[in-house]
Amino acid sequence: MDSSQLIKQLVESFRVLPGVGNKSAHRMAYQLLAKNRQGGKRLADALNKAMDGVRDCLQCRTFSDDDVCIICKDLRRDLSLLCVVETPSDVHAMEQTQAYRGRYFVLRGHLSPLDGIGPDQLGFTQLIELLKKGDVKEMILATNTTVEGDATAHYIRDICERLPIQISRIAHGVPLGGELEYIDGSTLAHSLTGRQQFK
Amino acid sequence: MDSSQLIKQLVESFRVLPGVGNKSAHRMAYQLLAKNRQGGKRLADALNKAMDGVRDCLQCRTFSDDDVCIICKDLRRDLSLLCVVETPSDVHAMEQTQAYRGRYFVLRGHLSPLDGIGPDQLGFTQLIELLKKGDVKEMILATNTTVEGDATAHYIRDICERLPIQISRIAHGVPLGGELEYIDGSTLAHSLTGRQQFK
Repeated sequence: MDSSQLIKQLVESFRVLPGVGNKSAHRMAYQLLAKNRQGGKRLADALNKAMDGVRDCLQCRTFSDDDVCIICKDLRRDLSLLCVVETPSDVHAMEQTQAYRGRYFVLRGHLSPLDGIGPDQLGFTQLIELLKKGDVKEMILATNTTVEGDATAHYIRDICERLPIQISRIAHGVPLGGELEYIDGSTLAHSLTGRQQFK
Repeated sequence: MDSSQLIKQLVESFRVLPGVGNKSAHRMAYQLLAKNRQGGKRLADALNKAMDGVRDCLQCRTFSDDDVCIICKDLRRDLSLLCVVETPSDVHAMEQTQAYRGRYFVLRGHLSPLDGIGPDQLGFTQLIELLKKGDVKEMILATNTTVEGDATAHYIRDICERLPIQISRIAHGVPLGGELEYIDGSTLAHSLTGRQQFK
């Protein structure tokens, strides 16, 4: 028996969060109530603002507060580089590396005919229009290195083949800190075929 | 660089939750935005209602929606049993066992003179008034089995010694599924001194 219906509802609501089961949800609810109600109110406020306010950037299709996102607006970005990723969180992951200073295009998924996701859903028309403007010199295909991500990358390469643009794919291989003994065979095979001159 | 200030604020707000670091907070924010905005709005609503609405039960001091909590209102509960715990989440833990059908009294902490928590903060006056009413025949001290929890239990035993009430302490010992090899010495010693006839 719970001593409060409001807590019961809060616990159930917490379970929409990824990785949060019944026990963590209870811990979250009781800890906020006992120690940080102000923090709980701030979280509610931030949730409401984000769920209502965040929309899609009209240029790159990532999450944005305005019609055009902060990254697309940034004049210091290299216009000649375009990185194609599957999701807005992939943009975040790429930005974390601080190794890329170009722009992005977010597909919002990968080709998956069985789920009804074809070229129209992934904004390929918008991508090709962007490329035809002529600013982009190199397009980096950074879809996931899964079967679907690879298929999507191949499809994009095919439809963009005639455009005067260099198309590259992110490198597949052994991750940093990886020990050969524990790497799967396909990754190891890729790291061999993709080997580069040792400088 | 984040593509949205609203997402940045949401990620920071998620970090008030226990066990949520930067990476989990990002995952939560992006997953809600991409897949379950309705769930996010419901969570915000439940948070607001709980942070504003949940108060302390006037009888047992646990979290409650009204002046008196659902457990205290429940007429099927055994009035002669009172379980004293440290926090409202301890009440939840005890209820989960379904092994207890009495009522509770929540101290909201343990004796800790260095932190300025003395008998007045833990509602001992209220506890003694409750005991003097005469309904309670047995009081189970279920404070944590830590140094502070033990000290608090001893203190309560001392101040209630003259009341015509049986006072018990939850059993210390080897947890179910525990292997002796890995149990600390003090726990093992307790499990020996607290041994019971094998039925």
